[in-house]
Amino acid sequence: MLTIFSDDHRHQDGKAELCDGKIVPCFEMPRRARMILERVRSQKLGPVEPPQDFGRAPIERVHAPALVEFLATAWDAWQAAGFSHDALPYTWPVRRLRALEPDAIEGRLGYWCFDAATPITAGTWKAAYAAAQVALTGAARLSAGERAVFALCRPPGHHAASDLYGGYCFLNNAAIAAQALRDAGAARVAVLDVDYHHGNGTQEIFYRRADVLFASLHADPRQEFPYFLGHADERGEGPGEGLNLNYPMPQGTCFGKWMEALEEAYRRIDAWRPDALVVSLGVDTFEGDPISHFKLASADFHAYGSRLAGLRLPTLFVMEGGYAVEAIGVNAVNVLQGFEAAG
Amino acid sequence: MLTIFSDDHRHQDGKAELCDGKIVPCFEMPRRARMILERVRSQKLGPVEPPQDFGRAPIERVHAPALVEFLATAWDAWQAAGFSHDALPYTWPVRRLRALEPDAIEGRLGYWCFDAATPITAGTWKAAYAAAQVALTGAARLSAGERAVFALCRPPGHHAASDLYGGYCFLNNAAIAAQALRDAGAARVAVLDVDYHHGNGTQEIFYRRADVLFASLHADPRQEFPYFLGHADERGEGPGEGLNLNYPMPQGTCFGKWMEALEEAYRRIDAWRPDALVVSLGVDTFEGDPISHFKLASADFHAYGSRLAGLRLPTLFVMEGGYAVEAIGVNAVNVLQGFEAAG
Repeated sequence: MLTIFSDDHRHQDGKAELCDGKIVPCFEMPRRARMILERVRSQKLGPVEPPQDFGRAPIERVHAPALVEFLATAWDAWQAAGFSHDALPYTWPVRRLRALEPDAIEGRLGYWCFDAATPITAGTWKAAYAAAQVALTGAARLSAGERAVFALCRPPGHHAASDLYGGYCFLNNAAIAAQALRDAGAARVAVLDVDYHHGNGTQEIFYRRADVLFASLHADPRQEFPYFLGHADERGEGPGEGLNLNYPMPQGTCFGKWMEALEEAYRRIDAWRPDALVVSLGVDTFEGDPISHFKLASADFHAYGSRLAGLRLPTLFVMEGGYAVEAIGVNAVNVLQGFEAAG
Repeated sequence: MLTIFSDDHRHQDGKAELCDGKIVPCFEMPRRARMILERVRSQKLGPVEPPQDFGRAPIERVHAPALVEFLATAWDAWQAAGFSHDALPYTWPVRRLRALEPDAIEGRLGYWCFDAATPITAGTWKAAYAAAQVALTGAARLSAGERAVFALCRPPGHHAASDLYGGYCFLNNAAIAAQALRDAGAARVAVLDVDYHHGNGTQEIFYRRADVLFASLHADPRQEFPYFLGHADERGEGPGEGLNLNYPMPQGTCFGKWMEALEEAYRRIDAWRPDALVVSLGVDTFEGDPISHFKLASADFHAYGSRLAGLRLPTLFVMEGGYAVEAIGVNAVNVLQGFEAAG
């Protein structure tokens, strides 16, 4: 399987995030991507190629240009305000407040971001932009005829909505890729999100769309981040009615139960007859993940990867979460090897 | 002037808040109230009496019972989740997300709070409840015939909305008092907020009300917390149309310019002929305040206190912000002494 990778991911290297009331070192760190790349190489998964540069236009097919511009300039504004440490917001325009973008960068951060866990650093834009180009290059190769491509994106993307970043995500790599597949001629694209956390950004972006189906297997938002989206009753709206499929599961879910949800999503995707599949590949469903609570073992990733090949669709794997850093390479590549073995 | 005070304020003693991307010691600390009380006593402002207990009912006249219950039980839920440090939320239901209260306390905090600067501690409920009773006792004494009362509330209240806490505020002491004055027979109550920060909570609570006028002098929300409310074009709605008066001013505003806004608010309040006045008394307009940027000198507080007496209204002063702790007693009591000298 072809892997697309950019070393520019390393420029997103946040020092700290707010987590459960405390400032802790960032779980989303450069070593994550390095471990996956090492495993891709040691397992001889296939060639590793750098991304092409498609510019901002395909990013702005799913994101508000004002968000993209904010991300590209926020660090400079933060520095101009006299700060040199990572930028985190501290107040948010929730209900009873007015979602009007202020002038001060301290307030603008809260306008564009929905959490206090996603630091903007000097290199954030460079890394996030590169990750989007990795996904776009993967989509282009798929459109050109590849059976499957691995977009080794970092930072991840699935929490980023049309005009919001958060959850360690800045640009929604999977959504950008799905839109690019559509724009290259695929009439229908399915996005399957297997990350432990609900892909709230991807859901929001395609919620009213008849041409993109979104299915997500994740921890129940009543118990887990992002808390404020991902319920089973969110089924899409308007032209997208019935094309948003959420499978929330309780903490402690084991592989057997998880696979039942995957089978259901599989049937729905298969019946919809898409032209291509984008897999938001988070491996934080792993039993050893430090911030997640499902019980998948490393071998289980190989098993579900094999099953995904059964859809017989051109498939783009887009890397998302996974914070058990020592195991992340094995788990992610197991999915890809399972897919190839069955393909 | 009679002062109402409860020593229970000391139970709100947060360790840390998120401020401009860093965790810093709380600016809102017990010493603030102690410094004011000392000054009240050393200046022989008048008697200092403890609050009566009016229970939760008058609090729930302006706050959602579910918020009140959350505040009363959040620490227990946080402890039950295994935490022993101060509770801060880390993710929020902004636009594109769904404002549905989750089950997990980590998510519930973000549902009920709009910032990461307002820690819930073991003693938060006790302190916030006591502050509300201080305000209610002040209102009761005013209704019973006092010309003016100082409700030495801590924690402050004006950022707390009907169903949100934040900005160091849990229960909106001034709004609770204004409602109590209404319920005791005052047909019209004016709330004048002179804190450096916009009183977004008080505005929201009375935004559609014909019986309570809200006027606020504050730093422009484009530049300052709370960022997402406090613009001049927010003038009230429905029956409250025209009864919400915001006077946003730029950082660096000096006393002369500030008094021009106060004179305008004064005229509007005077013309409306209220039966009582509640002053949300923040003294973070002081030139030495560590987190604010207006330029009032200590003597200026005496001057505007004198001016307020000219309204010839039964007046309840409710303590709000002010973070130059060494000067907070002098500045707050200067307002009260100015009022008395002119009264």
